[in-house]
Amino acid sequence: MAHTIREKKKILARVNRLKGQLEAFSQAIEQEKDCYQVMQLLSSCRGALNGLMGDLVEDHIREHIVKAETKKEASTGGEEVIEIMRSFWK
Amino acid sequence: MAHTIREKKKILARVNRLKGQLEAFSQAIEQEKDCYQVMQLLSSCRGALNGLMGDLVEDHIREHIVKAETKKEASTGGEEVIEIMRSFWK
Amino acid sequence: MAHTIREKKKILARVNRLKGQLEAFSQAIEQEKDCYQVMQLLSSCRGALNGLMGDLVEDHIREHIVKAETKKEASTGGEEVIEIMRSFWK
Amino acid sequence: MAHTIREKKKILARVNRLKGQLEAFSQAIEQEKDCYQVMQLLSSCRGALNGLMGDLVEDHIREHIVKAETKKEASTGGEEVIEIMRSFWK
Repeated sequence: MAHTIREKKKILARVNRLKGQLEAFSQAIEQEKDCYQVMQLLSSCRGALNGLMGDLVEDHIREHIVKAETKKEASTGGEEVIEIMRSFWK
Repeated sequence: MAHTIREKKKILARVNRLKGQLEAFSQAIEQEKDCYQVMQLLSSCRGALNGLMGDLVEDHIREHIVKAETKKEASTGGEEVIEIMRSFWK
Repeated sequence: MAHTIREKKKILARVNRLKGQLEAFSQAIEQEKDCYQVMQLLSSCRGALNGLMGDLVEDHIREHIVKAETKKEASTGGEEVIEIMRSFWK
Repeated sequence: MAHTIREKKKILARVNRLKGQLEAFSQAIEQEKDCYQVMQLLSSCRGALNGLMGDLVEDHIREHIVKAETKKEASTGGEEVIEIMRSFWK
């Protein structure tokens, strides 16, 4: 079973928290709060999202590469990681 | 007037799009979609959020430093940028 | 044969170029050049180093995971990628 | 006096350390060391360079914006920070 299914509950809890943080940012913009405050709110969202992304990729490597049942599974997992990582090197 | 007030409409439009992308990710997790697909969805969210963050900081520098009305305003703006940027250097 | 051996010449050429860029930065500091100029020089080094890092990790995944000869090799490769990637998610 | 002049000695010491780390990476490639080892060496270089870059930009903001002697100096400093930061948001 894929890690995103096994960890479904935990991931959904984290996305919900992230949605809440994004909502707080939205409202701060809506209410014309001080721009330093709004940047701090978005910066928190960024930290939360990057953390979630990192954990998902790590789980993906662990599940589909480190614990792969076949060489083929690991190979496909590797190609997927290459694609996902492309945007991180710049 | 602060850039986050003047650009209010545009910023809200971008956050709403980002909320939509995050919702798509949420649903993909909920529906137990393939984990490569879910990572791609989160990767798009990450790109959108980083882009928005970058534009906000850039607008902040432009408004409160480049076009500051007083040396004091620029000075405060500079201190805020230092705080916001701290998490970006690692 | 490991990718860092097969690609030895190419990698060394890139590191040498990077050393040259770092030397230019060093000299700009030594000669007390304008600080915007020195930041630009270091920013180029950063781009070059990140690009090289990205290519090395990609080659590593391709060679030791995608084209792994055994499940064991892919598994070890995966663990190594997890370790290397840790510092990238923050 | 510009921060890159006042801090000249410290910056040169850090670049020299970084050059040493890059040399270690070079030699590891030359000696055909294990590719995980070489990636770790380059990863250390990346951390050191990012740290130095962050400190330079922070000093730049502090010196030419926070402590600017004129509105004009802060304004120019702000434009420079915008240019330098462009590559960091992706």
